[in-house]
Amino acid sequence: MGNTFGKSFRIHTWGESHGGSVGVVIDGCPPQIPIDEAFIQAELDRRRPGQSKITTQRKEPDTATIVSGIWEGKTTGTPIAIYVFNTDARPNAYDEMKDKFRPSHADFTYFSKFGIRNHEGGGRSSARETIGRVAAGAIAKQVLAHYLDIEIRAYVSSIYDIDLKDAENIPFPTQDTVESNIVRCPDPAIAEQMIETIKKARSKGDSVGGRIVCRIRGLKPGLGEPVFDRFEADLAKAMLSIPATKGFEIGSGFEGSRMRGSAHNDTPVAEDGKVRTTTNRAGGVQGGITNGEEVVFRTAFKPTATILKPQETVTIAGESTELIGKGRHDPCVVPRAVVIVEAMAALVCLDHFMRDAGQNRLE
Amino acid sequence: MGNTFGKSFRIHTWGESHGGSVGVVIDGCPPQIPIDEAFIQAELDRRRPGQSKITTQRKEPDTATIVSGIWEGKTTGTPIAIYVFNTDARPNAYDEMKDKFRPSHADFTYFSKFGIRNHEGGGRSSARETIGRVAAGAIAKQVLAHYLDIEIRAYVSSIYDIDLKDAENIPFPTQDTVESNIVRCPDPAIAEQMIETIKKARSKGDSVGGRIVCRIRGLKPGLGEPVFDRFEADLAKAMLSIPATKGFEIGSGFEGSRMRGSAHNDTPVAEDGKVRTTTNRAGGVQGGITNGEEVVFRTAFKPTATILKPQETVTIAGESTELIGKGRHDPCVVPRAVVIVEAMAALVCLDHFMRDAGQNRLE
Amino acid sequence: MGNTFGKSFRIHTWGESHGGSVGVVIDGCPPQIPIDEAFIQAELDRRRPGQSKITTQRKEPDTATIVSGIWEGKTTGTPIAIYVFNTDARPNAYDEMKDKFRPSHADFTYFSKFGIRNHEGGGRSSARETIGRVAAGAIAKQVLAHYLDIEIRAYVSSIYDIDLKDAENIPFPTQDTVESNIVRCPDPAIAEQMIETIKKARSKGDSVGGRIVCRIRGLKPGLGEPVFDRFEADLAKAMLSIPATKGFEIGSGFEGSRMRGSAHNDTPVAEDGKVRTTTNRAGGVQGGITNGEEVVFRTAFKPTATILKPQETVTIAGESTELIGKGRHDPCVVPRAVVIVEAMAALVCLDHFMRDAGQNRLE
Amino acid sequence: MGNTFGKSFRIHTWGESHGGSVGVVIDGCPPQIPIDEAFIQAELDRRRPGQSKITTQRKEPDTATIVSGIWEGKTTGTPIAIYVFNTDARPNAYDEMKDKFRPSHADFTYFSKFGIRNHEGGGRSSARETIGRVAAGAIAKQVLAHYLDIEIRAYVSSIYDIDLKDAENIPFPTQDTVESNIVRCPDPAIAEQMIETIKKARSKGDSVGGRIVCRIRGLKPGLGEPVFDRFEADLAKAMLSIPATKGFEIGSGFEGSRMRGSAHNDTPVAEDGKVRTTTNRAGGVQGGITNGEEVVFRTAFKPTATILKPQETVTIAGESTELIGKGRHDPCVVPRAVVIVEAMAALVCLDHFMRDAGQNRLE
Repeated sequence: MGNTFGKSFRIHTWGESHGGSVGVVIDGCPPQIPIDEAFIQAELDRRRPGQSKITTQRKEPDTATIVSGIWEGKTTGTPIAIYVFNTDARPNAYDEMKDKFRPSHADFTYFSKFGIRNHEGGGRSSARETIGRVAAGAIAKQVLAHYLDIEIRAYVSSIYDIDLKDAENIPFPTQDTVESNIVRCPDPAIAEQMIETIKKARSKGDSVGGRIVCRIRGLKPGLGEPVFDRFEADLAKAMLSIPATKGFEIGSGFEGSRMRGSAHNDTPVAEDGKVRTTTNRAGGVQGGITNGEEVVFRTAFKPTATILKPQETVTIAGESTELIGKGRHDPCVVPRAVVIVEAMAALVCLDHFMRDAGQNRLE
Repeated sequence: MGNTFGKSFRIHTWGESHGGSVGVVIDGCPPQIPIDEAFIQAELDRRRPGQSKITTQRKEPDTATIVSGIWEGKTTGTPIAIYVFNTDARPNAYDEMKDKFRPSHADFTYFSKFGIRNHEGGGRSSARETIGRVAAGAIAKQVLAHYLDIEIRAYVSSIYDIDLKDAENIPFPTQDTVESNIVRCPDPAIAEQMIETIKKARSKGDSVGGRIVCRIRGLKPGLGEPVFDRFEADLAKAMLSIPATKGFEIGSGFEGSRMRGSAHNDTPVAEDGKVRTTTNRAGGVQGGITNGEEVVFRTAFKPTATILKPQETVTIAGESTELIGKGRHDPCVVPRAVVIVEAMAALVCLDHFMRDAGQNRLE
Repeated sequence: MGNTFGKSFRIHTWGESHGGSVGVVIDGCPPQIPIDEAFIQAELDRRRPGQSKITTQRKEPDTATIVSGIWEGKTTGTPIAIYVFNTDARPNAYDEMKDKFRPSHADFTYFSKFGIRNHEGGGRSSARETIGRVAAGAIAKQVLAHYLDIEIRAYVSSIYDIDLKDAENIPFPTQDTVESNIVRCPDPAIAEQMIETIKKARSKGDSVGGRIVCRIRGLKPGLGEPVFDRFEADLAKAMLSIPATKGFEIGSGFEGSRMRGSAHNDTPVAEDGKVRTTTNRAGGVQGGITNGEEVVFRTAFKPTATILKPQETVTIAGESTELIGKGRHDPCVVPRAVVIVEAMAALVCLDHFMRDAGQNRLE
Repeated sequence: MGNTFGKSFRIHTWGESHGGSVGVVIDGCPPQIPIDEAFIQAELDRRRPGQSKITTQRKEPDTATIVSGIWEGKTTGTPIAIYVFNTDARPNAYDEMKDKFRPSHADFTYFSKFGIRNHEGGGRSSARETIGRVAAGAIAKQVLAHYLDIEIRAYVSSIYDIDLKDAENIPFPTQDTVESNIVRCPDPAIAEQMIETIKKARSKGDSVGGRIVCRIRGLKPGLGEPVFDRFEADLAKAMLSIPATKGFEIGSGFEGSRMRGSAHNDTPVAEDGKVRTTTNRAGGVQGGITNGEEVVFRTAFKPTATILKPQETVTIAGESTELIGKGRHDPCVVPRAVVIVEAMAALVCLDHFMRDAGQNRLE
């Protein structure tokens, strides 16, 4: 029963890779917000595989249908249901998986937990599940934009061993800059190297991982619900709930653990009647609550588990066997994950914005 | 309203540094479990400051009182309430903080959120809040031990620039080994260097950060509630909810993002009728569900914000000022945080064990 | 954000009377349970208007489509999504409601809350919303039947001034008996009078209310989560969440308040190694927990608000006006509500069965 | 795990009749609200037994201690913890209950659920548990009064066979009127009869039940979260969570089911720019949302289970036995329950006020 995210702005996703459809129900959306359905579709298109030569060639239009909660272009405050039909199901492609556990996939663990699994396309652990998140994130972004002058921008900072140096300190990039190349790295030269790295892995039937930086500006101070629902704790949960993620850090992150307090502390100063800090090692949060500075965090993605090489594994019966991935594979999901990172970040921002209002903005 | 952790095994903490007491209410505890109160006290003693020459000298016995939910030494299934009185409150020590925001503390953000704050000792963001977590964790550990042959072991892997190399691959240490030195690093030689590093920071009125590895063995496959309440997502949230944390990684973590799929995938093999993997880059979870391997994760802690050096800051009125920390300070919270990391990990394990039973162990 | 019911077996409904579809997402369903889709459809058919000459003539097949969570006829443990398309939308029929608040409908209150409302067919407060509940209830009934020898039977005990005397003490009726007449009263003679009463109201363009008794047998002792989530408290909430309900009572109910303790107390006796009670004024619960006796409760329904008579009301602009209901109307929803009462009761039973297992059936 | 009430304003109660103390933790309280501790104490004194000659003579001061969340007389937005020590524990008085199940108490059901029970004084199902509710309700009333011109007034409308006729249509009574007699009925003559009835039951070692009317004025339109968390559904749950309750009805209630729609519908009219209704059969809610009219509901209480007469029962071993209640007993809890009804109503009002703000009062 872990398919709900959020407390005030709540989303419930459902659907498997090869069932009839995937989708999301959003509960608690503020009313009277104009919703641009084309924007939702555009976000789904950004997430979609088959967009470029470095992703899987699964061809699905991923057309979103909104069936409730929006009336004459505006949210009504009631649940918004969105679904996307699965049109590219190829059940036979997964026949081999019926009895074999794919290495580093969730086949074995779902089977251990439930004693049954839909072996077609990974079932619920398929990346298609994230469609609902992206659609909900596209709504959340529009609601946030209605109230705040906010920008949420994620981009690829590393692919395999290619790094965008000092990735979180470059000028805040526009979305156009990020979208200007297929790997979604705002530096064109580095992007080119990343693309080559992915192509090389692909040519070998292999895959590579990478990292994403996400930056949020325009959040006001005061969002976050300590002691457990700290803003960064909910961001960490959101990121680690994305398939293939292995790590999260905010502000100074792991490197911050190698500093002295005198070097790490951010100095508060008054600026135009606001309290700001001269540095931002905190990453925009102090004590679990936003301080008005840019929120900056990074997420690590492991390489895609599906590779087109023979791998040893075991059958359900516990016998050794070999498995060879066939057909399509996605040598690097990181560029597409940029859209999912942004969507989850938007959900956290809006949920905390609403939670804060419920306690602190009464009248 | 973010002071609750868990869904089936739920804890609610309350209390501030300088109010009458701090404590925790635990709801949903399985009944008939024998509880050793001395163990709870021992865990609180491990967490307590003033235990050694490298921590703050705050002297409080932190005596736990259990006032409900336990009857003749066993849990009754009803809420367990535990509290610890604050006996070392020194309200005057905080007079200066009344009007000044301490750098990199939560003073400004709590004030932004609520428009009011208890300036004595950090209020709710004080480390004393974690007493409730440790007490609840000590209950959770005993409940887990009743059902599973489980071990949860956290230890310090880095302090400032001193690292225990390959820290998660050393033989699973006993608790005695971890407790054999005041810095809680299982390697005595490295521990000595860490202690020197902390002493050096302290002699300068400065502080240092560090990292903690936590390993869990004995968990059965099947725990975790995708797609959002993945086992590692809840661990990430639990860790990032601990004061001063800036990062979390599981298994291969950030380094895993620099690998190829062919090198990263763990190979399944059958062993004594169980499915195991020959490597554990996954860190014990696949698709958000435990796979029966050791769960291994790391948490990063920034250096303590309180230092005994003059620092620039601003007043509530927005004027520049200087603040000098006085008296006691804790140059490194990481050794004590080992106990909090273990407590939070125990809460996640037990909560997921119960959630899984509620869906999958019906009869 | 109140569109979720349940804690362990959780349902989320969505959809409006005249949007594209209505539906439900079920999270936390136990896995490996065989699901008979024909039974779901049969339950929806029982709920459907237009079944008989005493209901509204809205003609919709209400065909359920399951799009995830069921694989080869069995639940997989992942979210089950079910939807039903709205095929009988007649948006123009509601033009008059665009600016007028219908008396005793939710038009004014939804508008007050959200500042916007879908005026077609009552939007979210339409009875069509209950389709999702009935579909989820049909799943819950099958899951319960897999584990317990349980029967949940609701029937009509009053329509307007026609009463089935001592309605909860008749022999436990079969479903066939209940379904043998269109008013769903197990006594054929009384049923005939009820039908006449409804027809009479209908002939005048008026409506009538009524009462439903629901009895559950086969629940084991121990279900319920005091102090707030008592079994009867969750039943009460479930019943009062059904449109048009105005009251709930369990066991001796309101009449029980007119008794002395010596007459009201149920006497425990040992029977075949079980503790039973000789009477059941408790209605199957003591202290918020089931005691193994039959759970018996009653729900009161007000008369349908829509009538085919001219009524005074006001416009959105606050001017007096008159409104005349046209076309179809449902003179009495109570017989159809029998199905919704059973569905909600099934949800409460299963949710508490699972919650109890999560705390008390660990191993 | 059912010891939490509310979603935005959340309370967690804990404690048993004879443990060290009982109490409550409140999470999510709006900040900066001045709290009069004397009012909390006054509410606890109203709830306390031993206040008058018609209640049990248990003599406990029930002194509330607030240990966090309030600073210099105002709420800080952080958890408020309140406890009350149990000073009148008489464990030996309950020796007989160790092996015998008291009729119509929760002894058997708690034992069935948890396999263990604290037999002293009813454990968690003791009326002492409601102390935490009343303390939390006293906070909620003050928060509500800070924002709204609200009055919540409960009073006794029936004791056994003595009724205050047309009880919900008398002029809205002041609290002084209600408190002017020990049975808390606003009509002095009827109150006298009720008191005689209780005394008579008491003289026989017996007990009587009764009913409470509760009215709330000053709530604005728009509170309630359909479709499940309707305002009246949460009220119903709140009331049925109070020990000894057997029924709930709102507005026209069970009698409303005996009406025709044309007679039941409330007619909307414009009044001073507001939409009002000429009658209030709805009881202040339409479609699960408040409409600005007075909220009116009734709750039924069964007679106290403890009586001073010999009763048949069974032992834990399943043998027939007899039990004779001794010493103190409370012949009628209904007058004291007035305070609990008001407290629970206040919790529902504030929780929905905050939930509404979180979705609809953003800026």
